[in-house]
Amino acid sequence: MITAEELSKMQKEISVSEFFEKNKHLLGFDNKTKALLMVVKEAVDNSLDACEEAGILPNIKVSVSQDKERKDVYKVVVEDNGPGVLEDQVGKVFGKLLYGSKFYRLRQSRGQQGIGISAAVLYAQLTVGEPVTIYTKTANQKLTKKFKLYIDTSKNEPDIIDIKEVGNKIKDHGLIIELKLIGRYKKSKGIIDYLRQTSISNPYAKIIYHDPDGKSITFPRSVDHLPKPPKEMKPHPYGIEFGILIKMLKYTKAKSLQSFLTNDFSSVGSVSAKEICKISKLDKSKKPNELERKEIERLLNAMQNVRLQRPSTDCLSPIGEKELEKSLRKKFQDAEFFVTVTRAPTVYRGNPFQIEVGIAYGGNLPKDKQIKIIRFANRVPLIYQQTAGAISEAIMGTSWKRYGIQQSSGSIPIGPMVLVVHMCSVWVPFISEGKEAIAPYPDIVKEIKLAIQDAARKLSRYLSGKRKVGEIKRKIKIFEKYAIESSDAISKLTGVDKRKIEKLFEQLINKKMKSGDNNE
Amino acid sequence: MITAEELSKMQKEISVSEFFEKNKHLLGFDNKTKALLMVVKEAVDNSLDACEEAGILPNIKVSVSQDKERKDVYKVVVEDNGPGVLEDQVGKVFGKLLYGSKFYRLRQSRGQQGIGISAAVLYAQLTVGEPVTIYTKTANQKLTKKFKLYIDTSKNEPDIIDIKEVGNKIKDHGLIIELKLIGRYKKSKGIIDYLRQTSISNPYAKIIYHDPDGKSITFPRSVDHLPKPPKEMKPHPYGIEFGILIKMLKYTKAKSLQSFLTNDFSSVGSVSAKEICKISKLDKSKKPNELERKEIERLLNAMQNVRLQRPSTDCLSPIGEKELEKSLRKKFQDAEFFVTVTRAPTVYRGNPFQIEVGIAYGGNLPKDKQIKIIRFANRVPLIYQQTAGAISEAIMGTSWKRYGIQQSSGSIPIGPMVLVVHMCSVWVPFISEGKEAIAPYPDIVKEIKLAIQDAARKLSRYLSGKRKVGEIKRKIKIFEKYAIESSDAISKLTGVDKRKIEKLFEQLINKKMKSGDNNE
Repeated sequence: MITAEELSKMQKEISVSEFFEKNKHLLGFDNKTKALLMVVKEAVDNSLDACEEAGILPNIKVSVSQDKERKDVYKVVVEDNGPGVLEDQVGKVFGKLLYGSKFYRLRQSRGQQGIGISAAVLYAQLTVGEPVTIYTKTANQKLTKKFKLYIDTSKNEPDIIDIKEVGNKIKDHGLIIELKLIGRYKKSKGIIDYLRQTSISNPYAKIIYHDPDGKSITFPRSVDHLPKPPKEMKPHPYGIEFGILIKMLKYTKAKSLQSFLTNDFSSVGSVSAKEICKISKLDKSKKPNELERKEIERLLNAMQNVRLQRPSTDCLSPIGEKELEKSLRKKFQDAEFFVTVTRAPTVYRGNPFQIEVGIAYGGNLPKDKQIKIIRFANRVPLIYQQTAGAISEAIMGTSWKRYGIQQSSGSIPIGPMVLVVHMCSVWVPFISEGKEAIAPYPDIVKEIKLAIQDAARKLSRYLSGKRKVGEIKRKIKIFEKYAIESSDAISKLTGVDKRKIEKLFEQLINKKMKSGDNNE
Repeated sequence: MITAEELSKMQKEISVSEFFEKNKHLLGFDNKTKALLMVVKEAVDNSLDACEEAGILPNIKVSVSQDKERKDVYKVVVEDNGPGVLEDQVGKVFGKLLYGSKFYRLRQSRGQQGIGISAAVLYAQLTVGEPVTIYTKTANQKLTKKFKLYIDTSKNEPDIIDIKEVGNKIKDHGLIIELKLIGRYKKSKGIIDYLRQTSISNPYAKIIYHDPDGKSITFPRSVDHLPKPPKEMKPHPYGIEFGILIKMLKYTKAKSLQSFLTNDFSSVGSVSAKEICKISKLDKSKKPNELERKEIERLLNAMQNVRLQRPSTDCLSPIGEKELEKSLRKKFQDAEFFVTVTRAPTVYRGNPFQIEVGIAYGGNLPKDKQIKIIRFANRVPLIYQQTAGAISEAIMGTSWKRYGIQQSSGSIPIGPMVLVVHMCSVWVPFISEGKEAIAPYPDIVKEIKLAIQDAARKLSRYLSGKRKVGEIKRKIKIFEKYAIESSDAISKLTGVDKRKIEKLFEQLINKKMKSGDNNE
């Protein structure tokens, strides 16, 4: 029998790197094809975030090449014209999990967890074991610096093995990351799909891709300006949890309860702050860190029941109806009908979010297959787990037949359609660290459904117009056919010139057609 | 425009507690009903692990009660007769995420990540904000000690606010944990289901449950001995990854490559070790930490291509065919047929694992509904995400019609059946930290299918026997009906006594029935 003493000796701290090393499938590294895509994705997402934040129109180069000796080894190089990373931050940004600038800020960005790019480094070192190479130059540096580094997984700390100045490999400013990993390259789907979709949701980015077969593809900009940069917001009282409020009260710089409420939260002005204090029977000049449990309970209750404005939504950066339509028209040139909808922002658990939907319909799109679904979260394409999460729940839960689209109930509809759904938020709840699907919170699913219905109604109007035009055309053909025969007969009976009668028929048909257009 | 310098200032380390606080849905705390169950589950799983490891037959008491003032607040108390936890470990075990005794050991256990119970504490403090209370007494202590603690989420460290000696609240040894959290209590499904299923997979545990309505339910032992304790194993060369090998070579205590191979791995004797050195053209007396990259590549290649025994499987502790059948017969007394299958252990990515399947069929089980599926991983019931992961993939991918069970292809079959699937392993790959479903690695799905087919074949034999008996009975009835009428007619025609003819018919039928039983 093992004693409590012996058991205690086995207790040990677990490094978060080792945790994810063992659970790499949680990060999306569960097979070689996906792993190769994930590495590209994390690097590109990082580049886009950095460029946007620094107000730079992104130019991104992605290159994937196969190792000559080991056919299962691929080298990924991603280069951007972003602001670069300061020397003293390179190690932690790329060599430490749970480190980043985005986790504590309520502001829309692609990264939010501080895991992505270091997870890619972790996977590369786990499978191939070579250090990752980073080149970086900021606007203030004269020369490019080159770093080689590992992650020391037992400590979750970077292990920088080499730093060098390497001339002007980078011209103005930017970053290059090079990794080698075990992967598998598939031509269909995968990286090319991810980049194409990225270019739809980031129409202001230029992306050049060199694939392992030596081919180059350029995804040009379809829009020449950056979107309005999203602002950072403070938490909204409606979404706050008890434990978080306690922590905020403890660490706030505010000297009084009233200034705590107005400074540390969004949508709370001095009037609302006073009202909250009044409802919770608390002195507005009380020091925040002196509140007792019962008082905090009352405070939270008052905060969540007082009437407040919704959080301001300048923390969000949707693609925009115009921009999304432009993108769709460019990518699906053969479709015949386009509609895009950007819903007004709303809130789940205090987090502002916004849903956009785009539809490309008809033309050369395949008629007898399931519609093509393209999902985005904060402009990042979601490639895997198509049938999981909020977006597919909303799509399958919509009654598509009502809009003239074929569907067996509860399934993906059938028809010549591309359906784009984008959720942007200061905090997207993903179903795993690999960020493959959005957790199906009811508020989110509902809002996606509403956006889909908006777009589908417009499609439906187009389709019924199309059907009507079709019917009229058919009717006209029948009229025309009989008109000629009838004219002949009438001419013989009445002796009136046949061509005259035909002309009368023609006028009649044209008139009829117009009225059918308006009245039916 | 923000500069690289300004961006750098925003970079920050993210505490793993804060990461999961914000991502609590990853831990399974995505709604109140589930949260209440998760807290019970983590505490009970911990108790079972501790008892088993210390060789103690588990007696566990679970009590859930509703707060009188706040109806959405529940108090959960779980008490066990395990070995207790040493004073200096209490803080970290309950107040620090990624801390535990199981992560680094290759040995079957319920916990493996060092997250579960501290996640429950995290959720309790986030929603209600009171400290968690722990009572513990080890066999060597005279008095029970009582701890009150929080998690300091910004540091991911315990914050113990009170320690007291409290007499003999615990008699011999054991642990009591008390938490208050916001939850929702549902009578159907939920805690009671989880405990019932726990009692199926842990037939040697006695569990008493006091529910919020004041009722008590006891799940008694159906088996009076603990299973053979699983042993700790070393990693098997076939499952090792390059990055892990590098780390092992760096930190090993072995002085030579040969002793590294024989001491730090399972299934490698001195003969195999020499062969590995020979294939990889490495000196067997070379110091492990002096190998270069290219040499390590050759070493790994040799390790994975040399013929080795499969990993020994005494690190596994399946429920067992007999024990599982006993459990099933006890829980589903009205079913008419039982079959259980424990497959031989096998390996995925170097990790030994074993699949067990149990079927209870017929009787009063509902005929027109989907079969009831009970899933276990290392004896822990998986309650949520029924349709996700390896087990459901295997069930839906089995052709049940072949075994006489109704199924529309690719779906859950229909019929009066309870299907139990258990995976035990030194490392179960879950699809999320909340451990709700097993990741569908192809090797695992395949093995589950084979186990299901084994059991289904036996069921199918029983069913065809049953059908045969049914047919014979039907035939006899027809015979009997005609026999009486025929006897009458024959008697009239021949003048022989009617009863004599009837008797002859009866003999004939009996004879026919027996032969039908054997020959058909």
